[in-house]
Amino acid sequence: VNTNLELFITPTELRDSLSGKVAAVIDVLRATTTIIEAMANGARSVHPTVSVEDAVDLANRLGRADVVLSGERHARPIEGFDLGNSPREFTAEAVSGKIVVMTTTNGTPALEAASAAEQCVVAAYANLQAVAERIAQTDQPIAIICAGRSNAFSLDDVLCAGALIRAIRARRSGTLVLNDAAIAARALEQQFRSRLARVFARTAAARQIVDAGLAEDVAYCLMQDRHSVVPVAAGRQITL
Amino acid sequence: VNTNLELFITPTELRDSLSGKVAAVIDVLRATTTIIEAMANGARSVHPTVSVEDAVDLANRLGRADVVLSGERHARPIEGFDLGNSPREFTAEAVSGKIVVMTTTNGTPALEAASAAEQCVVAAYANLQAVAERIAQTDQPIAIICAGRSNAFSLDDVLCAGALIRAIRARRSGTLVLNDAAIAARALEQQFRSRLARVFARTAAARQIVDAGLAEDVAYCLMQDRHSVVPVAAGRQITL
Repeated sequence: VNTNLELFITPTELRDSLSGKVAAVIDVLRATTTIIEAMANGARSVHPTVSVEDAVDLANRLGRADVVLSGERHARPIEGFDLGNSPREFTAEAVSGKIVVMTTTNGTPALEAASAAEQCVVAAYANLQAVAERIAQTDQPIAIICAGRSNAFSLDDVLCAGALIRAIRARRSGTLVLNDAAIAARALEQQFRSRLARVFARTAAARQIVDAGLAEDVAYCLMQDRHSVVPVAAGRQITL
Repeated sequence: VNTNLELFITPTELRDSLSGKVAAVIDVLRATTTIIEAMANGARSVHPTVSVEDAVDLANRLGRADVVLSGERHARPIEGFDLGNSPREFTAEAVSGKIVVMTTTNGTPALEAASAAEQCVVAAYANLQAVAERIAQTDQPIAIICAGRSNAFSLDDVLCAGALIRAIRARRSGTLVLNDAAIAARALEQQFRSRLARVFARTAAARQIVDAGLAEDVAYCLMQDRHSVVPVAAGRQITL
């Protein structure tokens, strides 16, 4: 059995409908890593928003007491918000039983674009094997959508996508038919696998996080399979 | 001396102004290869257009007798045009002393976007070393713009970009500071260099050309340094 697997480097590459496909969204530094952490630590749901204003409005509408308001601008926490976008902050103590409202620059457009799929899961190194397991069980064509960076190629997301493609392939008997970007992601992941931390340090995303004084986040986002949760995005809401 | 070298996977990734930069445009299958072939074989100029109608209008305005009208839709020649978009057609006999009006799907938007640069050159495997030589002589930041495919990642262009980056680096004493996409292109080129024809055969661009019965074009576009011309794009016109 042949299954098409398409990788999209940024959400702006999406042209055809995602209906009938299973989609995975990756913003490994840091939005999807943080969402996985929040859901693994007992958050009821995560609601991504584009703007800071939308996040505040939604928090007020949902009931400020039940909400953890979080997000970043230029990788830094937003004044007056409960948390930033550092996965290390999303402990059970901080988020268990709460609704997380999160505004992030690149992750939100990707999640919104991808949630038009039949099923859309949230992926990062943190839950790579669990996502691969879930996707390998479907017969549908697969779309992996990288958040990218200002709608441009972001190597961190592409490397994570390459690792996910490898994990999916390992669980399938049939052939995965890869598009150009997926072929590239597999090759890059293979080439850089043994020195992932070093190549991540060169990416624009990691450099911005380091500049914001959050260097530990980069190493944290590279830790593989800390969690087995597979958050699902539908509409503007992410749940388990 | 540090020089920034940014690779853009598609023209839609271009956000900042290109002014003050030297740019190279790559649509290796086949528009930039064909433009280089035409200019090397004595064409006076090449005029890329987006639509078939624009190409016909421009040909009539420039004087139909002086013009070679060329281009493709879905990799196939256009009815009533003099030539398609196959570089093998652009012989001295066909184009010497002529103005080439050319409409191509992905190449034209890339050339239009890039010609806002201080200097914009047309690159492909056909003139790689000549382009590298020209670019290595400037002190300006470098932007390489891939045509891509329907505004998405196209592996053929990215591999050619990786080869160009390597050739530029070989001619420079200072450090080239690469963006994420340029790091990826270098790595991919290194990994696939020894089996370029095989990986090209897997790309969507090559498969479409093969489907159109033009398989020989793919091998032709991979031939390196057949020419030493460096066509320059300014406004909507390409000359030497």
